[in-house]
Amino acid sequence: MSRTVEIVEVGPRDGLQNEAVLLEVEEKLAFIARLEGAGVRRIEAVSFVNPRRVPQMAGAEEIMASLGGGAASGRSRIGLVLNRRGWDRAVAAGCDEANAVVCATDGFGIRNQGASVAEQVATLHEIAGLARVGGPSLSVTISVAFGCPFEGEVSEAQVAALVAECAAAGVGEIALADTIGAADPWTVRARVAAARAAAPDARLRLHFHDTRNTGLANAAAALDAGADVLDASCGGIGGCPFAPGATGNIATEDLVYMLERGGWETGLDLDALIRTAEWIGERLRRPKPSALSRAGVFPARP
Amino acid sequence: MSRTVEIVEVGPRDGLQNEAVLLEVEEKLAFIARLEGAGVRRIEAVSFVNPRRVPQMAGAEEIMASLGGGAASGRSRIGLVLNRRGWDRAVAAGCDEANAVVCATDGFGIRNQGASVAEQVATLHEIAGLARVGGPSLSVTISVAFGCPFEGEVSEAQVAALVAECAAAGVGEIALADTIGAADPWTVRARVAAARAAAPDARLRLHFHDTRNTGLANAAAALDAGADVLDASCGGIGGCPFAPGATGNIATEDLVYMLERGGWETGLDLDALIRTAEWIGERLRRPKPSALSRAGVFPARP
Repeated sequence: MSRTVEIVEVGPRDGLQNEAVLLEVEEKLAFIARLEGAGVRRIEAVSFVNPRRVPQMAGAEEIMASLGGGAASGRSRIGLVLNRRGWDRAVAAGCDEANAVVCATDGFGIRNQGASVAEQVATLHEIAGLARVGGPSLSVTISVAFGCPFEGEVSEAQVAALVAECAAAGVGEIALADTIGAADPWTVRARVAAARAAAPDARLRLHFHDTRNTGLANAAAALDAGADVLDASCGGIGGCPFAPGATGNIATEDLVYMLERGGWETGLDLDALIRTAEWIGERLRRPKPSALSRAGVFPARP
Repeated sequence: MSRTVEIVEVGPRDGLQNEAVLLEVEEKLAFIARLEGAGVRRIEAVSFVNPRRVPQMAGAEEIMASLGGGAASGRSRIGLVLNRRGWDRAVAAGCDEANAVVCATDGFGIRNQGASVAEQVATLHEIAGLARVGGPSLSVTISVAFGCPFEGEVSEAQVAALVAECAAAGVGEIALADTIGAADPWTVRARVAAARAAAPDARLRLHFHDTRNTGLANAAAALDAGADVLDASCGGIGGCPFAPGATGNIATEDLVYMLERGGWETGLDLDALIRTAEWIGERLRRPKPSALSRAGVFPARP
């Protein structure tokens, strides 16, 4: 029973973005190098937001100038883009991929990105039009796709309509993000199926936060429902500034451990991930940030 | 999509058993009262082990004398029994149910209970014979059913053979316990199916620890595979003294939250469980012990 799953490492972006400790560019590059050394092929390396608003994400151009595109080594360095200016920066910086964002609710979109859903969809169409001509390949993340801290429940119909919108814009990979950790495995299955129906040709990617301890259950459900790609952050770092007490993304090493025990192949080196989680945890003053960094693998290594 | 699942609360036994802080009998009774006030119908209330070896479990007879049997109120107070002496104590104390234990490996059985698997199976047959005549109803838990800290991997065939042995002894409910948090959702499904095949008439109960953050994923997989009953401990208290860094059982409130979000009915009051988790966490010097006690429910209560 050998099955393969692709994991996108989001620690350097979604992880660091929500940490109180600011890292230097050199430390971020060292983090990325360790992750790629552990086998990571796709990584959210930078975010093209305003560094005055999100100081954790400063240095995006420097980081990409040092990394370069990953095509020659079969790797992909992803930059987050929230608007046309972000897209232009991602092109200039030489990102392999750009990840655009559309929030599922106006309430979250206006507070988080200063734009309504309709405005974000319009921006997506603009960027997708540019991406068809050249530049990085484009994916899109639909945030608060399982619940919004401001509007509460988000319906499957709302999400499916946005997925269809993204597919109509020609985006080849669409992610559903549980930004505040409100999903459960049965809802995940239903939404993966609805997204598949709304965008039969797109790759489906799922992004879970472990705020309410359901992250790995949701990840397993997503795979069982046919998701193609999962996001995770080494050390489970990050969180959501709008969700008090929230933990971060599901930890890459916890996810890889669970998947390997279940017969899935990830292409990642679990021991190297655990060492990297401990390394980044020390830098963020959160030693042993994930379950695997605390408990170790089972069976114990000889 | 209304589905029902039965949850056995194991906090007063498997939870407290592995905590450093010792509670007085009155505090244990208050814990049980709060849990039953939150809707718990079946509770592991006491353990009939030697209180010199496990001081956390002292006072079993006193607790049962105060509680009495729960039949009149539709409740069941369960006592753990590891041997014939434990069974006799459970009968004398008036437990509604006795939960016997058979370890899946000699390595764990001899260290944990001073008895090989064969000796434990012989004891189970003896107790089951007595239970057929009178006394508490009998269930059995197969411990380290997904991995052993001493022997490593535990095969599905080993577990299925023990399940068949328990069914042959006439035990009506059989639990598979992931004592050290080594299970994954796909192995859980396969083992639930194997256990069902080995004991078609028994109720199947699953007991997960969250040592490696897979506990809720395993619980969801168990339900999807047709398990009848899940164990959980309020606050996720407990752990395993043989697993360094281990966390305890899956937290009842985290489990109930996930299940309710997914359309399952548990008969439990989530808000009361969260308050009880915070209450027991303070007594054990571990405030906010579970994800739900930290992050709160979604959507936020009006």
